[in-house]
Amino acid sequence: MTDVLERLRGIVGAAHVLTSTGDQQAYVVDWMKKYRGVALAVVRPGSTDEVAAVLRCCNDAGVTVIPQGGNTGMAGGATPDGSGAQVILSLTRMNRIREIDPVGNTITVDAGCVLATIQQAARDAGCFFPLSLGAEGSCTIGGNLATNAGGIAVLRYGNMRELALGLEVVLADGRIWDGLQALRKDNTGYDLRDLFIGSEGTLGVITGAVLKLYAAPAAKVTAMAALPGRAAALALFTRLRARAGDRLTAFEFMTRNCVDLVLKHASGAVAPFAAAPPAIALAELSDTDAEADLAGLLEDLLAAAVEAGEATDAVIAQSGEQAKALWRIREGISEAQVRAGKTIKHDIALPIGQLAAFMDDCERVVEAAYPGLNFLVFGHLGDGNLHYNLQRAPQMDDDAFYALTGPLNALVHDLVHRYRGSISAEHGVGQLRRDELPRYKSVVALQMMHDLKQLFDPACILNPGKLLQS
Amino acid sequence: MTDVLERLRGIVGAAHVLTSTGDQQAYVVDWMKKYRGVALAVVRPGSTDEVAAVLRCCNDAGVTVIPQGGNTGMAGGATPDGSGAQVILSLTRMNRIREIDPVGNTITVDAGCVLATIQQAARDAGCFFPLSLGAEGSCTIGGNLATNAGGIAVLRYGNMRELALGLEVVLADGRIWDGLQALRKDNTGYDLRDLFIGSEGTLGVITGAVLKLYAAPAAKVTAMAALPGRAAALALFTRLRARAGDRLTAFEFMTRNCVDLVLKHASGAVAPFAAAPPAIALAELSDTDAEADLAGLLEDLLAAAVEAGEATDAVIAQSGEQAKALWRIREGISEAQVRAGKTIKHDIALPIGQLAAFMDDCERVVEAAYPGLNFLVFGHLGDGNLHYNLQRAPQMDDDAFYALTGPLNALVHDLVHRYRGSISAEHGVGQLRRDELPRYKSVVALQMMHDLKQLFDPACILNPGKLLQS
Repeated sequence: MTDVLERLRGIVGAAHVLTSTGDQQAYVVDWMKKYRGVALAVVRPGSTDEVAAVLRCCNDAGVTVIPQGGNTGMAGGATPDGSGAQVILSLTRMNRIREIDPVGNTITVDAGCVLATIQQAARDAGCFFPLSLGAEGSCTIGGNLATNAGGIAVLRYGNMRELALGLEVVLADGRIWDGLQALRKDNTGYDLRDLFIGSEGTLGVITGAVLKLYAAPAAKVTAMAALPGRAAALALFTRLRARAGDRLTAFEFMTRNCVDLVLKHASGAVAPFAAAPPAIALAELSDTDAEADLAGLLEDLLAAAVEAGEATDAVIAQSGEQAKALWRIREGISEAQVRAGKTIKHDIALPIGQLAAFMDDCERVVEAAYPGLNFLVFGHLGDGNLHYNLQRAPQMDDDAFYALTGPLNALVHDLVHRYRGSISAEHGVGQLRRDELPRYKSVVALQMMHDLKQLFDPACILNPGKLLQS
Repeated sequence: MTDVLERLRGIVGAAHVLTSTGDQQAYVVDWMKKYRGVALAVVRPGSTDEVAAVLRCCNDAGVTVIPQGGNTGMAGGATPDGSGAQVILSLTRMNRIREIDPVGNTITVDAGCVLATIQQAARDAGCFFPLSLGAEGSCTIGGNLATNAGGIAVLRYGNMRELALGLEVVLADGRIWDGLQALRKDNTGYDLRDLFIGSEGTLGVITGAVLKLYAAPAAKVTAMAALPGRAAALALFTRLRARAGDRLTAFEFMTRNCVDLVLKHASGAVAPFAAAPPAIALAELSDTDAEADLAGLLEDLLAAAVEAGEATDAVIAQSGEQAKALWRIREGISEAQVRAGKTIKHDIALPIGQLAAFMDDCERVVEAAYPGLNFLVFGHLGDGNLHYNLQRAPQMDDDAFYALTGPLNALVHDLVHRYRGSISAEHGVGQLRRDELPRYKSVVALQMMHDLKQLFDPACILNPGKLLQS
């Protein structure tokens, strides 16, 4: 091991091989403080060639490598185990914007670029990079790619996968694949790019990417609708999408419990409606044409929805301030949850048309097994993605509630599976869902995944124990 | 072999194993009559289980299998070799629309469904399936998926890859992968779906798919602009996209030679401008909102473009008839080329911002090597995709011209490669570009492709000699 450390120092420089507990602190624990590990060293390469040399060295020595970006993951995918024998490969020193092309609408970046830096570089060039999520000030694009990040713009622009044109990847044995192409069309063989996107650092280390840019939105309008029930949310969504088309850039859903929680616990949240409805939807339209009459369009649509009984009331923001106040209700849920005490969380996706039926079924099943839990159900309804969270019953203590994690996961995820849904819509598998995966993936899919892992990483040095069971 | 035929008859029924020359005729030659082969049999399974049994049988017997849909490919990817030992697996009997979900905006189909049938089913449900190409009346969705088809709606909706949510695939050894999910988000492991899309039947046989549907366009406007040169095309495209955003559903480009050829040879084409410009662009805007003032928007944009010198003149279609007449000029190119005599064709993609520079460079290089050829350059400029075709010089005979195919391919494709472009933007590799691929793919990419082929099809029974050299 001393020999390996010496070789790593030779590759990246002694200053970039961190071995002391103090220096490693920010790398060995995930941001939620849920997963903790110990590392042989944190290695911080400054170039793709250095990444290649590090992997060659580790592959030869049989040392396992945990790739890490901004360390903002939701599933423990970037935290080492407790052995103290793993190397954390931190990409954050590789943070150059390599090139920006406003005519081709592409940007080429190092994997360690922070998402907000890329958004800003796009804006500075008169373009728009749509990926947007809570951690954007510290997450890196390499992590976004490795986990196929979602966020609040998926309805209109797709997941990270849809925003990538080309990749540069270092394979386990140190070979560099230069797939940094800026093409909208290329039918010359297998889609290697999408194999690495979403593979959580288990098949290769992404070191660079070419991303799509878009025309910047020049007009935006936000509204909130009071819904008579869950099925109405789908009817309203269908109505908005049919006429507004891609102007519909967000369609978020919250049940009444979430709104109540936010009003009680999140600072600065104001009740949107005098009488609290069973559920609310937040819709945002945007347009590249500054002169587009989005407010008029949305007013028409919401009036028709109220007429049709799909909404009981609606409010359209008349200013940026009012729009922020509406978004505050949606975005305050996370903060309110933290203050209100522990929750058991699920990040699930369903066929959109099945969302209302699923919610009805799931509530029935959970309530029958564990009466009195508080349901906090919200999410990106337009993507079929629900954050399906459960809070302890008033009479339950935290420990008794936590003991339900496994059984509740099984209850909720079994039903998700019956609806042909996904047990991880946007957060990935990491350590969090790894042991649940075999229960829900088909045998053939799992065989293919293990075969691919074996093909790309025969010595199993890349992020072992993440995503797949070893 | 007799034994294999008997077993195949046992699986699909004797009526669906075609062995006579007459019965096989429509299957052993591609539609362009460019590739001809002989088959042991054409096997026409009626279900996914039958496909699985056929592949198991062939894999055990070491008989190679050529998957085939509508037989409309552009690269000879579905034609057997001349050995008479290969089985053509025709999917056309599997042509059921399995399910359509207008709320979830998805349709689930058999691989043998004809594209136009799917378009119609979507329309009947008040939705829209955007894939559209010349062969849509006879190509099948399985072929579209296997070749990652492009067409005229890529600018707005993406390639086939972007339109697929889930797949059902039979692997070489007969295992069935049920990946038929209708989810917009799923981060539970490796992206198996995109590995099969675009793999030209060499990794597995696609038997079913879940496809995305969209809100139907309710307004449309078409215009043609006279351009002072090639660079102006990019400036005009950038201008339109910045304000019209996703309303811009087509941006097609043609050089003057193409327009001249169409006016001379294609029936019913009318000169769009009194004085013939060096190049023209055809732009189409569409909108899901029937009340959108697209003509007003496009008029504003084109007036500003003329003011800025990006166009010298423009005409906006005032009726569906006029729009058709403008499209006739673009769509007449294929017909005119056939009538005007043989061409050497290239289907290339480039970074969009490099298109004008590439065209200048390529013309210089080709003209220096082979003076007097006629350049017919047109294509989906908004996708960076050019059909870069060359016609013989007036004094040249056809044979002398054809002898230039190899050298001209090398000249054009070497330059494409230098610009980091693709030698097959939308037509695929098949037999047509197979032997050129090693010259342009990186060693690492080719290694990964061969490794994947070996992993998924160790006995090499699936479409051997297509895409990859054996």
